[in-house]
Amino acid sequence: MKANLNPAKGMRDITPYEKEIRDYVEGVIVNTYKQSGFELFETPVVENIENLTGSEGGENLMLIFKILKRGDKLDLKKEGLTEEDLSDLGLRYDLTVPLSRFYCNNRANLTPVFKALQVGNVFRAERAQKGRYRSFKQCDIDIIGDGTQAAELELIATTAKALTALNVTDFVVRFNDRRVLKAVILNCGFTEEEFDGVCIVVDKLDKIGINGIKSEMEDKGYNKTAVEKLIEALKEINKKGTNCLNEYGVPKEVISDINKVLEESNTYADGKYDVIFDFTLIRGMGYYTGSIFEIAYKDLGYSIAGGGRYDEMVGNFIGEKIPAIGFSIGFERLVNQLMEENFKVPDLEKVVLLYEPADRYIDVLAKAENIRKDGYTVSVYEKAKKLGKQLNQFQAFGYKKFAVYNSDETELKELS
Amino acid sequence: MKANLNPAKGMRDITPYEKEIRDYVEGVIVNTYKQSGFELFETPVVENIENLTGSEGGENLMLIFKILKRGDKLDLKKEGLTEEDLSDLGLRYDLTVPLSRFYCNNRANLTPVFKALQVGNVFRAERAQKGRYRSFKQCDIDIIGDGTQAAELELIATTAKALTALNVTDFVVRFNDRRVLKAVILNCGFTEEEFDGVCIVVDKLDKIGINGIKSEMEDKGYNKTAVEKLIEALKEINKKGTNCLNEYGVPKEVISDINKVLEESNTYADGKYDVIFDFTLIRGMGYYTGSIFEIAYKDLGYSIAGGGRYDEMVGNFIGEKIPAIGFSIGFERLVNQLMEENFKVPDLEKVVLLYEPADRYIDVLAKAENIRKDGYTVSVYEKAKKLGKQLNQFQAFGYKKFAVYNSDETELKELS
Repeated sequence: MKANLNPAKGMRDITPYEKEIRDYVEGVIVNTYKQSGFELFETPVVENIENLTGSEGGENLMLIFKILKRGDKLDLKKEGLTEEDLSDLGLRYDLTVPLSRFYCNNRANLTPVFKALQVGNVFRAERAQKGRYRSFKQCDIDIIGDGTQAAELELIATTAKALTALNVTDFVVRFNDRRVLKAVILNCGFTEEEFDGVCIVVDKLDKIGINGIKSEMEDKGYNKTAVEKLIEALKEINKKGTNCLNEYGVPKEVISDINKVLEESNTYADGKYDVIFDFTLIRGMGYYTGSIFEIAYKDLGYSIAGGGRYDEMVGNFIGEKIPAIGFSIGFERLVNQLMEENFKVPDLEKVVLLYEPADRYIDVLAKAENIRKDGYTVSVYEKAKKLGKQLNQFQAFGYKKFAVYNSDETELKELS
Repeated sequence: MKANLNPAKGMRDITPYEKEIRDYVEGVIVNTYKQSGFELFETPVVENIENLTGSEGGENLMLIFKILKRGDKLDLKKEGLTEEDLSDLGLRYDLTVPLSRFYCNNRANLTPVFKALQVGNVFRAERAQKGRYRSFKQCDIDIIGDGTQAAELELIATTAKALTALNVTDFVVRFNDRRVLKAVILNCGFTEEEFDGVCIVVDKLDKIGINGIKSEMEDKGYNKTAVEKLIEALKEINKKGTNCLNEYGVPKEVISDINKVLEESNTYADGKYDVIFDFTLIRGMGYYTGSIFEIAYKDLGYSIAGGGRYDEMVGNFIGEKIPAIGFSIGFERLVNQLMEENFKVPDLEKVVLLYEPADRYIDVLAKAENIRKDGYTVSVYEKAKKLGKQLNQFQAFGYKKFAVYNSDETELKELS
């Protein structure tokens, strides 16, 4: 067989060197979350297709990897065959849809307010692009069953703590609310139907600037007066923050909710990071109903974490109203950034123990066990003819010490 | 939407309680392997379909979850549509095929002899059955590039160490060699073509006994003399072990290889477990070329770990001869068994901190952080009206202590 050695397009092999860094980063995040009382659970990467296609995942619904039916269920002879006929399962595109299903399915075995922690890969059939993968890891915390601002405060504080534990400190939490966006945009004269389209343009402010937004909206044929009013609103809200929101018909209680989160989060952060109101923060998912937030790190053009309140979604599964809110760390982006900054995992004491073919292998293994008792990681390999070259290789692989097996005389030496 | 709350058929949600046990077990195994110098790496759960369908996975090739092509590549109008036309990717059915591809693809960045450690889920579209899942975890160690018995000895010693670290001790390692099976079966008068079929029957010895085997083989129309000779061989090999193998045309060097592994493994095990020769051990995978082995635990009717030598497979990817051998722990079976034995994870000190809506939430969070500094896991929840009932619930969820927030007077109390 002439084989293709590459992983599937847009997916990746993770070598031991990179895996060590990833596992360390994941460990720090997960331990921080667990210590804060978030409970780790797991759902399969495969979900029933209706739960995926029937969800409010916005553009992600176009990117689902669908799994072919099997056996008798797969009827290739059917007239006018569609994708729906062919597929009964799919790979999850996020962790929020599975969490919602999981919560409804397992409520009896969960704390009444469920503080959820889920880590796992999600899959999106995106166009291949540098730094964008078709299989990537997310670390999510969610609070289900708490509709108060306590949930916003705890998610922001805990996500910030996890990043800080990795020495990622130079970040800003951007905060907005879908209800603010809705009120202001309608107040400017746009219709309900235009809301999503207007959001998509406003989302580009970072990239095309305020004039770019104006001309794009005019090109798209939106009402001129509405566009001008929105441009003014963008400028004024940018200047005055939440203080002017009442002028745009944002309900008082929404403004007071936002102000509470901003004030208390900043008090709690105590200058270590800022939580700022940002009216131009949009976030694409259709399921957000209230607060939305992202973490911007240094001057990266993308966020390293994002989330929001989705009070409708969980309840939809069972016809109840259940408040829910989540914050997701984009693990791949975070790790890539840390690796570019030359992030180092705290040293492992790795030792290589070399033996000759004439040595009895179980004696060599017993010696290795002995060295491990002192806390070392010990790998056993046959001694090469060119010892110097071999030792250089092991040093390059991160080994710190070596020994050549010689029964009781075996001696640990520094690699250098 | 009227939703189906269940996970996909044959797959499972893992609740926090079970997840804690699973993660602990996985942690012990992985740490044991890493400390022994095995290197953790990762491959995607999705592979190019040819790498799966073109592999020697035996019956597993019938169980592949195939992924539908996307966009223009999916042509539903084609005449005489087949599964091959519809699918370009699939979910891996084991970790060995991805390891082989990974090794060939990343050789330059790996130690010359690669001691591989991979943990991950694999997927098989099996008929649903108690204790058998369509998505399940495997923990594999493999040694690539070492054709000597050192590899057998190390894999057996290290897998046994991982189990022992979990207090799983009452196990036996069954050991056989595909070359022995081949030699004996041909020596009895069966043909090359009959070999696989004969193995499938012999594999049932545990279940149907020696007479069952005899009658099943006769029913299937095998040559009577050959069947009788094989039955005699089974009896004699069972009695005399490897000592009589030369009578059945097994090459001397094969017998000496086996004896070396048996003797040295048992010396090393020092009575803690036995490594026994078992001619009726078959193992289904088509890719095994030499040693095969399994771990039988107590009187369970199935093995909790299994593996063997597959010297052809890795090299097939790149047209070289590369020796390889692996040992895989069946994680689901092991965990199920441990849970049935009431396995307990070493205690976590979980504390619940309760607050009233009138408390400032960031003060409560700060207090929780303070308690965490003493090493506790602290969850924060709103105090319920019925405090006694609430505390009982948290106790049932494994919490050991509680406190009701009261600024500096907050006091930690035992739950009981």
